[in-house]
Amino acid sequence: MLENKLEVEEVVNLIENKKINELKKYLERINGADFPTIFEELDEEDILVVFRLLNKERAAEIFTELDSDLQEKLINSFSDVELKNVVDKLFMDDTVDIIEEMPSNVVKRILRSVDEKDRKVINEILNYPEDSAGSIMTTEFIDLKEEMNVAEAFEKIKKIGLKKETVYNSYILDKNRKLIGVIDIKDLLLADRNQKLKEIMDTNVITVTTHDDREDVTKIFDKYDYVALPVVDKEGRLVGIVTVDDAIDVIMEETSEDFEKMAAMQPNEDEYFKTSVFTHAKNRILWLLILMISSMLTGSIITNYETAFAAVPILVAFIPMLMDTGGNCGSQTSTLIIRGLATDEIKLKDFFKALWKEIRVALVVGLILSLANGVRILLQYHDIKLATVVGLTLVATVVMSKCFGCILPMLAKKLKLDPAIMAAPLITTIVDTCSVLIFFNIAVAIMHI
Amino acid sequence: MLENKLEVEEVVNLIENKKINELKKYLERINGADFPTIFEELDEEDILVVFRLLNKERAAEIFTELDSDLQEKLINSFSDVELKNVVDKLFMDDTVDIIEEMPSNVVKRILRSVDEKDRKVINEILNYPEDSAGSIMTTEFIDLKEEMNVAEAFEKIKKIGLKKETVYNSYILDKNRKLIGVIDIKDLLLADRNQKLKEIMDTNVITVTTHDDREDVTKIFDKYDYVALPVVDKEGRLVGIVTVDDAIDVIMEETSEDFEKMAAMQPNEDEYFKTSVFTHAKNRILWLLILMISSMLTGSIITNYETAFAAVPILVAFIPMLMDTGGNCGSQTSTLIIRGLATDEIKLKDFFKALWKEIRVALVVGLILSLANGVRILLQYHDIKLATVVGLTLVATVVMSKCFGCILPMLAKKLKLDPAIMAAPLITTIVDTCSVLIFFNIAVAIMHI
Repeated sequence: MLENKLEVEEVVNLIENKKINELKKYLERINGADFPTIFEELDEEDILVVFRLLNKERAAEIFTELDSDLQEKLINSFSDVELKNVVDKLFMDDTVDIIEEMPSNVVKRILRSVDEKDRKVINEILNYPEDSAGSIMTTEFIDLKEEMNVAEAFEKIKKIGLKKETVYNSYILDKNRKLIGVIDIKDLLLADRNQKLKEIMDTNVITVTTHDDREDVTKIFDKYDYVALPVVDKEGRLVGIVTVDDAIDVIMEETSEDFEKMAAMQPNEDEYFKTSVFTHAKNRILWLLILMISSMLTGSIITNYETAFAAVPILVAFIPMLMDTGGNCGSQTSTLIIRGLATDEIKLKDFFKALWKEIRVALVVGLILSLANGVRILLQYHDIKLATVVGLTLVATVVMSKCFGCILPMLAKKLKLDPAIMAAPLITTIVDTCSVLIFFNIAVAIMHI
Repeated sequence: MLENKLEVEEVVNLIENKKINELKKYLERINGADFPTIFEELDEEDILVVFRLLNKERAAEIFTELDSDLQEKLINSFSDVELKNVVDKLFMDDTVDIIEEMPSNVVKRILRSVDEKDRKVINEILNYPEDSAGSIMTTEFIDLKEEMNVAEAFEKIKKIGLKKETVYNSYILDKNRKLIGVIDIKDLLLADRNQKLKEIMDTNVITVTTHDDREDVTKIFDKYDYVALPVVDKEGRLVGIVTVDDAIDVIMEETSEDFEKMAAMQPNEDEYFKTSVFTHAKNRILWLLILMISSMLTGSIITNYETAFAAVPILVAFIPMLMDTGGNCGSQTSTLIIRGLATDEIKLKDFFKALWKEIRVALVVGLILSLANGVRILLQYHDIKLATVVGLTLVATVVMSKCFGCILPMLAKKLKLDPAIMAAPLITTIVDTCSVLIFFNIAVAIMHI
């Protein structure tokens, strides 16, 4: 942070004093990923000055890292030639990402600045479903042929490498562009120059198809430790690759989405501060309304037992404790199950195994909580009947909550819904109603109210 | 999955029929990362048979992927020579990971099987704090000198590359082993064979130090799109690298930890099914007890207003709705703030900006909820006073909950605690007490009870 601040001061200083040559040299020493932070402190005109001093590759690289508002402003200030210079150097997946965020007049300008062939590829990627492997892949990869030898392979990489997103992996295609093997640059480097690629390529290639879910793609990265993953179409032809940096972005986004869903919000793609108050409110109100209406049910149930708490008013004092404990137990279990399903640690076929585990955990936890509560009630109220009622209710509530917490996310998964919606808020509401019912029924039975 | 099943059947079949040569060939075609799933279905003796047929590199690679129970069993079955063969081919970070999970007698056997120099390195890595960059780095990287030319660099990489974890990046060290530059293999490949490394190396190297938090390391990977990150000691000497696959593992682990903490559990390192019922119960009981005792406070407060709900029993029916809505609003906000702090989208200096945003969102959301509730109360009970009491309480509760949800995680961060503990369960409990207090005070004032 401190370093960025010094960099900003130096850049501003050099611009103000019109020391353009020095500025140009200084900019070369700044890491590309730090420019967005620096740009935050500059006005638009100065950003343009900086931009025009960067070489084309770097300008394109830095452009992809900016937020979409700034990108739009810059594109509007670019001349057609400047825009073409940037777009020409962009990788295909970055161009598509930018297009997706721009208003239609800007999109038209961008598409005008790419050539016919690229325009076709861009339109194809734009047509892949959101959240699919196709939508996050890039089409710039190194393809080689199995008859080539290592020396020829190096020659080709040297010729086309600069325009490719990664040279770490090369892909071997047959004459129909079907993927038949992959070679890591390490194997190429360690091999003899005359060896044929056929002999050293790895034919056991893990691929994904264009329509696979991007979350499944990240699981493969996690499992197989790759730096890039080939994406094939239905005919097995290689159409693109997903690189590990994009996989990390997807992991971060999907995790944020899960957190939001599990806290009863509609997921939001923009950053917290970039989202307006009304969008925030809109994302939150739907679930709040649904949950509020559901919790009224618990309220109405309580009124049915008016005679009970009129006769023994102290009963009401235990309602918050029972509701909270039930909710907490349920959300512990549902969180573990949802996360386990997301990381494949828990599978649908483990349903009974998980349920049986949760029931046993619930019995242990429930007994300890009942005991703690029983001691406290006996000390404070000297009322063994009350201690029994609360203790029994606690054990039943804990077991029930943990069962709901286990069953509902797995049911959602079975129904091809997102398990993350079956999280704490919804489970708390369901458990509330049930725990109040259990409580008053046990109370009526034992206390003969 | 299906594919794994067929692979298992074929392996079992070949073992049973003692077709060892065929089995060996068949094993070569299986992806290393699939072996753990296959081993799940084999007994220990067959696993050993399979293991002995793999070449040394592959055996080591597969060994690192197994779970620690199976690793321990295998090590106990290995002869000293076999153990040395595996350990020799392991990368340093993997050896350390294995050692950390083993009982001391196995650790001794492993340390006996490595040479003096490696033993020293292992002990150093073991001494780095848990969750530090040092604890997840590997010490096998490619180091070059700035006076070398590109051809010499390739020669060295070819000579030592096989034993290094990655050849994608090479690090340029001065004579004191201080890190002065980095070269991506792409730049080496595209450069002229006679160019000096000095001319093509990138001197703007982002590094971490051995004691940096591993979570901060993952943020750098997310921001800078690297495949490896150099780790230096206090003197700036290069001591290791963290590779992107290990960064992904850390991201997944830290995320699971956050989920667990936010659901009021102590984080658990083992997989769900590998954790015993009692460990599960132990991880959950502490927070449940704390929260249960806190929620009793809400109960006692209710008893103070016994006369109020004796006079207007319908008031009790609104308690669950108010408590749940407050809890849900608070957990929405705290989730967004905690996640924002974790991803650096929200910083401590944004405190008032975030709080002001949440207050405005709360007012919008609170008014909508009050309106919905008011309409319902008027329709059902025709009681405008009750509608006013509930409506005012709702707005106050929502604003208060969202303030708590914003303030508490940021306070935790300020105090260098983990913001994740200030999540839904704790906030719900705090908000419960306050919302009940607000409710009865407003009711007493407006209804003159």
